[in-house]
Amino acid sequence: MSEILVVGSVALDTIHTPGGSVADALGGSASYFALSAALYVPVRVVAVVGDDFSEEHRDVLASRSVDLAGLQIASGKTFRWEGIYGSDMNERTTVSTELNVFETFHPVLPESYRQAGAVFLANIDPLLQEEVLDQLSSPWLVVLDTMNYWIAHRRAELLRVLRRVNLFLINEGEARQLTGADSILRAAEGIRMMGPSTVVIKRGEYGALARTERGWFSLPAYPVETLKDPTGAGDSFAGGMIGHIAEKGTVDEASIRRGMAHGTAVASYAVEEFGVGGLLEIREGALRARVRSLSEMTRFDPD
Amino acid sequence: MSEILVVGSVALDTIHTPGGSVADALGGSASYFALSAALYVPVRVVAVVGDDFSEEHRDVLASRSVDLAGLQIASGKTFRWEGIYGSDMNERTTVSTELNVFETFHPVLPESYRQAGAVFLANIDPLLQEEVLDQLSSPWLVVLDTMNYWIAHRRAELLRVLRRVNLFLINEGEARQLTGADSILRAAEGIRMMGPSTVVIKRGEYGALARTERGWFSLPAYPVETLKDPTGAGDSFAGGMIGHIAEKGTVDEASIRRGMAHGTAVASYAVEEFGVGGLLEIREGALRARVRSLSEMTRFDPD
Repeated sequence: MSEILVVGSVALDTIHTPGGSVADALGGSASYFALSAALYVPVRVVAVVGDDFSEEHRDVLASRSVDLAGLQIASGKTFRWEGIYGSDMNERTTVSTELNVFETFHPVLPESYRQAGAVFLANIDPLLQEEVLDQLSSPWLVVLDTMNYWIAHRRAELLRVLRRVNLFLINEGEARQLTGADSILRAAEGIRMMGPSTVVIKRGEYGALARTERGWFSLPAYPVETLKDPTGAGDSFAGGMIGHIAEKGTVDEASIRRGMAHGTAVASYAVEEFGVGGLLEIREGALRARVRSLSEMTRFDPD
Repeated sequence: MSEILVVGSVALDTIHTPGGSVADALGGSASYFALSAALYVPVRVVAVVGDDFSEEHRDVLASRSVDLAGLQIASGKTFRWEGIYGSDMNERTTVSTELNVFETFHPVLPESYRQAGAVFLANIDPLLQEEVLDQLSSPWLVVLDTMNYWIAHRRAELLRVLRRVNLFLINEGEARQLTGADSILRAAEGIRMMGPSTVVIKRGEYGALARTERGWFSLPAYPVETLKDPTGAGDSFAGGMIGHIAEKGTVDEASIRRGMAHGTAVASYAVEEFGVGGLLEIREGALRARVRSLSEMTRFDPD
């Protein structure tokens, strides 16, 4: 078993969906990831918030044994995001992004964080991801996420980080953008040439597709009855997946596959409620039942 | 084991893709389906062609033991379709559709066809699908396909046919159109209330999702290196799936799941070459290897 270090954003999200809205809710990639991965192993957060970040939000993370020693508090306002989802929940429009204290953020790892075995570099500037890697002694698992903006504007830096990564999570459109390949299969293979031995393509309602050292693995999304708020689904998937792998202490074909199933199950809870609410309701027995159910709904006897 | 009767179109297709073109190639839903299902069981075709339909095209079907006693030859021209695929192969534009002899077609089943156990009602006017059902004595398996045009313009007739169907194949957008549901899960459940106990949602490059009496089953597309021509993928999928089920002689959870894997494998060959060319190259051993490979790339141990 290994602890996980995550660097990413802790944010205040304002979210509008056809079914309702929330304002200034706890959000950000590091929050979703930490609350998900903490279901499996201890999680240490490297991020920054402003002096407006409430004790209440801090308590949500702390109550799940998330280590906040690496959470800087800067004078100024916390990172804020506001977005609107359309009726089919697949498209979202960003109303505003206020970087605030994130604008001048540089990750500084407490001494106790530097021995971390597993690290998740959530979607932030590749330069900051690199700064985190440079402060770690010898992690056995480095996982990276990114987005279209960095692929377009920090390409060289992103490619430099990619060479140091074991496992890369990326969505479908961004995999095409990064490689220039039309075929998602060729895109995944192209990305493996850039460094990561395993590439996981996130496909939203269609699930996830992995290219590992062994070959392809495909998993559907868990069928949820009510999709309330897709915000954070990708980071919750990452949290469940990396959480499981870190708990096993080894990244091999079995832990990658089972990890993706855990990620899928955790993400299914995340999207059933607004913000991080769904993650806070997860009980271990029910989560394992969803993982088994995913296995059942994909299994067939070929002969 | 059971023979399968198929009613649908036998056409001459002109297809343009970024990788090349073909003109007046053998096409149509009944052709793709018959060549696929004939890998498993004898297939009998009910369709119409014009007096311009070449002996060569007829021989392609006959050489695979497809029974053409129900293929009417009318004076006039064969049904023709011309289409163009864009660079990502997911969008196609129809340049022209000439119904020709199909305009006045009414299916008449030879006496020898009326005892058919399994029937595939390919994508044609629901009124014609109904005429075929009315001529059958007591099929144990009725499978239906349709398209957006019939959902919009022959809704009442389509709903009438649906009540007599066991297994319904439909693509994602059409399932939403038919039910008015945004969620594909609710759409599938809604369709089951209309008659068919099993609904298979075709999702193109994302594979297929089934709602059966037991619950959900999801299968990815088979990863093909080169996608040359997606024409006929859905009918080839249907042919492999229904072919396997008819060969087993029973429609249950195991034969539906394994059938979908056979359909997926057969469709992967279909899209690797222009027109029906890929289907003609299928060898049993290689096909079974793809089915096993699909099982391997979806399987994980949940505990």
